[in-house]
Amino acid sequence: MVAECRHGNTHVSFFSDLISTVFERRYRRALSDQADGRSLRELAMDLLGTRGEVSGSALAHMILDRYAAMSTDDKIAFFDFLTHDLGIVAEDVQMTLHAYQNVPSKDSYRAFAAASEPRRQELARRLNQVPGGTAQLVAMRRDLLRMLADHPAFAPVDVDFKHLFSSWFNRGFLVLRPINWSSPAEILEKIIAYEAVHAIDSWDDLRRRLQPADRRCFGFFHPAMADEPLIFVEVALTRGIPNSVQDLLADARTEIEPEDADTAVFYSISNCQAGLAGISFGNSLIKQVVSDLSRDLPQLKNFVTLSPIPGLNKWREATGPETTATDQDQAIAAFYLLEAKRADGLPVDPVARFHLGNGAMIHAVHAHADLSENGMKQSNGTMVNYLYDLSQIAKNHEQFVSDGSVIASTEVRTLAATVHREK
Amino acid sequence: MVAECRHGNTHVSFFSDLISTVFERRYRRALSDQADGRSLRELAMDLLGTRGEVSGSALAHMILDRYAAMSTDDKIAFFDFLTHDLGIVAEDVQMTLHAYQNVPSKDSYRAFAAASEPRRQELARRLNQVPGGTAQLVAMRRDLLRMLADHPAFAPVDVDFKHLFSSWFNRGFLVLRPINWSSPAEILEKIIAYEAVHAIDSWDDLRRRLQPADRRCFGFFHPAMADEPLIFVEVALTRGIPNSVQDLLADARTEIEPEDADTAVFYSISNCQAGLAGISFGNSLIKQVVSDLSRDLPQLKNFVTLSPIPGLNKWREATGPETTATDQDQAIAAFYLLEAKRADGLPVDPVARFHLGNGAMIHAVHAHADLSENGMKQSNGTMVNYLYDLSQIAKNHEQFVSDGSVIASTEVRTLAATVHREK
Amino acid sequence: MVAECRHGNTHVSFFSDLISTVFERRYRRALSDQADGRSLRELAMDLLGTRGEVSGSALAHMILDRYAAMSTDDKIAFFDFLTHDLGIVAEDVQMTLHAYQNVPSKDSYRAFAAASEPRRQELARRLNQVPGGTAQLVAMRRDLLRMLADHPAFAPVDVDFKHLFSSWFNRGFLVLRPINWSSPAEILEKIIAYEAVHAIDSWDDLRRRLQPADRRCFGFFHPAMADEPLIFVEVALTRGIPNSVQDLLADARTEIEPEDADTAVFYSISNCQAGLAGISFGNSLIKQVVSDLSRDLPQLKNFVTLSPIPGLNKWREATGPETTATDQDQAIAAFYLLEAKRADGLPVDPVARFHLGNGAMIHAVHAHADLSENGMKQSNGTMVNYLYDLSQIAKNHEQFVSDGSVIASTEVRTLAATVHREK
Amino acid sequence: MVAECRHGNTHVSFFSDLISTVFERRYRRALSDQADGRSLRELAMDLLGTRGEVSGSALAHMILDRYAAMSTDDKIAFFDFLTHDLGIVAEDVQMTLHAYQNVPSKDSYRAFAAASEPRRQELARRLNQVPGGTAQLVAMRRDLLRMLADHPAFAPVDVDFKHLFSSWFNRGFLVLRPINWSSPAEILEKIIAYEAVHAIDSWDDLRRRLQPADRRCFGFFHPAMADEPLIFVEVALTRGIPNSVQDLLADARTEIEPEDADTAVFYSISNCQAGLAGISFGNSLIKQVVSDLSRDLPQLKNFVTLSPIPGLNKWREATGPETTATDQDQAIAAFYLLEAKRADGLPVDPVARFHLGNGAMIHAVHAHADLSENGMKQSNGTMVNYLYDLSQIAKNHEQFVSDGSVIASTEVRTLAATVHREK
Repeated sequence: MVAECRHGNTHVSFFSDLISTVFERRYRRALSDQADGRSLRELAMDLLGTRGEVSGSALAHMILDRYAAMSTDDKIAFFDFLTHDLGIVAEDVQMTLHAYQNVPSKDSYRAFAAASEPRRQELARRLNQVPGGTAQLVAMRRDLLRMLADHPAFAPVDVDFKHLFSSWFNRGFLVLRPINWSSPAEILEKIIAYEAVHAIDSWDDLRRRLQPADRRCFGFFHPAMADEPLIFVEVALTRGIPNSVQDLLADARTEIEPEDADTAVFYSISNCQAGLAGISFGNSLIKQVVSDLSRDLPQLKNFVTLSPIPGLNKWREATGPETTATDQDQAIAAFYLLEAKRADGLPVDPVARFHLGNGAMIHAVHAHADLSENGMKQSNGTMVNYLYDLSQIAKNHEQFVSDGSVIASTEVRTLAATVHREK
Repeated sequence: MVAECRHGNTHVSFFSDLISTVFERRYRRALSDQADGRSLRELAMDLLGTRGEVSGSALAHMILDRYAAMSTDDKIAFFDFLTHDLGIVAEDVQMTLHAYQNVPSKDSYRAFAAASEPRRQELARRLNQVPGGTAQLVAMRRDLLRMLADHPAFAPVDVDFKHLFSSWFNRGFLVLRPINWSSPAEILEKIIAYEAVHAIDSWDDLRRRLQPADRRCFGFFHPAMADEPLIFVEVALTRGIPNSVQDLLADARTEIEPEDADTAVFYSISNCQAGLAGISFGNSLIKQVVSDLSRDLPQLKNFVTLSPIPGLNKWREATGPETTATDQDQAIAAFYLLEAKRADGLPVDPVARFHLGNGAMIHAVHAHADLSENGMKQSNGTMVNYLYDLSQIAKNHEQFVSDGSVIASTEVRTLAATVHREK
Repeated sequence: MVAECRHGNTHVSFFSDLISTVFERRYRRALSDQADGRSLRELAMDLLGTRGEVSGSALAHMILDRYAAMSTDDKIAFFDFLTHDLGIVAEDVQMTLHAYQNVPSKDSYRAFAAASEPRRQELARRLNQVPGGTAQLVAMRRDLLRMLADHPAFAPVDVDFKHLFSSWFNRGFLVLRPINWSSPAEILEKIIAYEAVHAIDSWDDLRRRLQPADRRCFGFFHPAMADEPLIFVEVALTRGIPNSVQDLLADARTEIEPEDADTAVFYSISNCQAGLAGISFGNSLIKQVVSDLSRDLPQLKNFVTLSPIPGLNKWREATGPETTATDQDQAIAAFYLLEAKRADGLPVDPVARFHLGNGAMIHAVHAHADLSENGMKQSNGTMVNYLYDLSQIAKNHEQFVSDGSVIASTEVRTLAATVHREK
Repeated sequence: MVAECRHGNTHVSFFSDLISTVFERRYRRALSDQADGRSLRELAMDLLGTRGEVSGSALAHMILDRYAAMSTDDKIAFFDFLTHDLGIVAEDVQMTLHAYQNVPSKDSYRAFAAASEPRRQELARRLNQVPGGTAQLVAMRRDLLRMLADHPAFAPVDVDFKHLFSSWFNRGFLVLRPINWSSPAEILEKIIAYEAVHAIDSWDDLRRRLQPADRRCFGFFHPAMADEPLIFVEVALTRGIPNSVQDLLADARTEIEPEDADTAVFYSISNCQAGLAGISFGNSLIKQVVSDLSRDLPQLKNFVTLSPIPGLNKWREATGPETTATDQDQAIAAFYLLEAKRADGLPVDPVARFHLGNGAMIHAVHAHADLSENGMKQSNGTMVNYLYDLSQIAKNHEQFVSDGSVIASTEVRTLAATVHREK
């Protein structure tokens, strides 16, 4: 046998994975024997107490396992406990704040810092110390988000979760990985499951998105959730900027050589973890991929999306110009993207807000670009290219956030102006 | 970003793969410009000549690419060339043999060794120096094997291929790898394609064979064909020795904990490369897997197959006992496995020859064990367990090859004896 | 060539590392061109502002690079800025706290959470988004710790650093890796540099600690600082519990087979990162290694340290029993470990506090166990074995923290009692 | 813990390596119990017989272990056995050759092929099936090469070894790997040991050759000997073509940015395995590295060696021009390289033969370029740059092998012509 053990070690890791699993399994069994009538609340208090220092990982496992098996009602009771029993104590905050103001010192500051952070944050950190803990905490927040509408009192718990996750899922801890036909099946099946924009209906369909030389896919991963993509983007390498997603994904399309492409099209971006809602990765992902692709394929000139306009028809019905002539679709979409604003001055369209907020500009608008049922329903099939020019995005972004300026190509401006005049 | 570049480097390798591919592609284009009217025969002679020393890999690429694109007729012409132009020259063998006999020396021996080896072997070695060359040579032999019936004169070429492949695919160069749900999709799709015994009809079916904790799969790989399994075995961990393959593969079966299993069942072994026919890996694979599984799960007591009896019905029709009572199936199968022999004293049944030749023994025979169309057709659904006992296989093997002794359990012997008496 | 690119890909990653480096270098050059007269303070405010959302990683690079090149005085000015300009604003805390108390809601809680966390924490998180940022922040705290004695006003900044690092270096994010003779030289040179207990004086000395079959070394690593061990422990596998570190490390010692060992001796534990002071890894490391070694070598019976007694002689001179007879060393050491307590009831000896706090017990005390200059100076050469029994550590720990109980073997108690009586 | 088990799995592989080792060790012990008085010769015959098919790897281990422990006399006896008992049988060759000539068929050809290949080749293949077998066979040939002078009758055994090794170490099976400061210590210590041209005297010296951004090192590895470099080349990236190796390796030199280099200098090439003498890797290695470096650093213009002229002084003393004026060194070296030929028309100088045979040209000659003791002794310190121009090497090579033409720059030709005229 080749000494794969040391160097390639797939073989070896398999048996060891197995060993781990067996070991883990026995360990969990032993744990459940200890389950000894203590309530989840008591276990949580133990974990926060001195016991937690030494038997922390056993306690953390027990709590997470119990939580996972709970009914919705029990989960509600648990979040209630987090909300009311492990929140801040206003008097403590005030007292320690005064003490710190009077005598600013290490001790007085530490006391204030401890008092002003609710204990549920420390609980989450201690639960996070076991393998798989991070993923289970993300799942816990997913549950919480679903309950918030009915239980608005839990909102502070969510604020704390989001605060912790922003720190743990800091961009500096994320890993960009290509996802391709050599990726593990357990990751690929998640791509099929999570694709949110243009559904992948089978493994063969997936292969068509990943295997051809003119297709790419990249995702962000976190080291503590190594099998779970956080967000991924699908890219097509093309000659020219495409104006139809069906053409882009057509079975019969002609594959091109990557080095013959002049354009990279980000035609689908999907967030994967409901429990990480509000933690933004998309901006970093696109910029990282633009940067990596330009290094790899220096002849690429354009980095654009081919994006849906999800709010177009809804807006049109409510407040749009009266024409229903479809030969106006393009101009109306341009108008909508440039002019339809919310009270805060930002575009009505959520996808527009995302890309313009990233510093992209509106490059072109295409009618008949997404003839799928969903595409017709949301925008009569009209789509838009947002263009990422690394040398402009900082400037574009600043204009956008300072006064809501939407940067667009002359062509798009002209189209929008047509509508303006008509109105 | 985490410094994945250095340590995990999936990200990095992707771009580099791409670079390689681009580079390779341009290189091939350049090569085809050189294709300058030289025939494949001329290119082969160049590769065997001094040109080969320096521009070898360019020539090898060109030859392999040309070969891959050839019509069947052109391939026949190529094998004809290998057979007649690159074979041994009897006079040279004789002359160098005499010289060596007269004055045994380094030079005279080297001359003899060179003369007695046909030049097509050196051609194959030189073709093998390029990336992917090994796989292309294996594919070349696959073509050759298909042509042999119509072109028996090519047989010596096949003898040489087999000789080279035995050396290159020496067990010492093979790598055992587990194949599981973390394996790359490009390998898994080959498992679906190559499974020869119990067809895998979808990715979901594949997942059922790989993902459960009580299922395993292992394959042999060669470093120069890293994406191509050579042979693989599927294993079920069970309590007790199973007597039905449908039960074993049932969707609704109850998964067990690996550490609760006492038996490992090799229920399917598939060779993947037609071009490696006659190069035996199965024996090594089973022994390696038995050895690895016993180390990993020390409580395992039985290592058995659940094997088809492909020759049973054919034999029964031709020469078997007259009864067609299906309640005799088990006994007749036992009789067939123990007593039905070829002229050379070895069992008629090819699967029996394989496992008994490996040193396994016949452990049990089961009626109604494979109710698939194929199972019914070949053996009325009867199957057999061959048992691998590492401490006995050397002894069993020797008895088997010295006098054709078939080692079987008392139970199987008793069953077979019933039939004997009846006859 | 074997297709190493895809599977082993050392080759590939090298060139890509290089590409990254080149790319990075050019990028930094471009950045410094932008250095446009803005002060570090201004850059930091930009990073905290909206600019940070899009050009964050460029700003973060610039700030970290500037910081790294600063004089001590400039660093002091920077920490002054962090202390006073990016601290909490008491009025804001009070105001938001009141608002939250009056109307507890998502918004009011979020406002309070924002106000009660100093902005320097957000600055640190944004600096952490670039490759290498984590290591640079750890180095920044190392600087800070050195300045604290002269600049006690900076203490709150350190409290915040420690708080962030506790979250980022949560045990759940750490990776245990064996360190052996197959480890990269760039990691091994750090082991040589960081070994704090028994100095490693050359690569040959290092090899003697790592390569023999009866030696092990393990370290904790963080994914974002992949080349930097955080803490490591050196282990000797022995027959019987050793009573001399010089014997343990002797060049001429007889190596034993790992499977013949009954004892694992943790003879050296070294923290590597001054900037992570106070973030405790040692407890987790030892327990993880005990757990892994017992799985791997199930015949191991004892998990002990061979530890220095750093405070013994100092205590002896100050307050110990009067005898200077060296034949009393063992008993006096036992007495010291059991009875010499601080005002808070915990042992005077820092190493004793660490291991007893982890739940270990005092197993044995050995005179003449460390004859090095340092060993003689701190404890007349006396050393101690702390014993880790996974089934007892939770109980031991709780007794220790609740009432300062020191668990020790009968033998050690008896030794200590001798001194007691004498006194 | 991060799930390193599956993805990074260093941790895991360590324990598994250990398990393997333990397992292996016990297995070997069991083997030696079987050592049962059979001689090595008998074991070898068993391995070649039917026993070998099933208990092959146990037998192979035993034979290789026995061999490794043998005295020189016993090894001589073993090679004698290989020479005389496992050589070809001339009558069998003749008989099978006649049979094949009379009736060319698969069987008759196979019989001839079997008879004309000595059985020691099959023995070597069967020994090669165990882990580590390849390395042990390479070591066996190293022993053999040392004995050849005293035992010329063993020469045919060496011819067979070389034949097998040429097939197994085919360039297509080799892996190019960068060797750098991230490489495992166990590989780096071999670089120190094997460096043949400019000795590396310490780990610090090694670091100076590997770590700076303007230094590179690459080696060929074989998958079955993964820890053993076969050959490696050290490269310096420079501005301009260097004329002194001491300057190149000076401690105080100024490091440059790789992207600022225009030249890659191959200043040392070392073969590592005495047992692979005569199996040429150098040609492929240089070309592969030139190709990879040009892809990675496209601005590189020159790929040159800075090579010793080992035969210069010896030739000068024997047959060179009479002048001893050192100001003539450069011209005389040029003359020597261009004009000093052996009987077969190829250059006297072995290093010149290697590089010119690879298709390089003589670019420049430098006096005072290697002032080391060895450099002064062999060539008065004169060195030479051979230049590799990928677009010319095939043409250069062909001219060189067809008529011994030495391609050199005008400058070198002019220098040589001076000497010519003088003579």
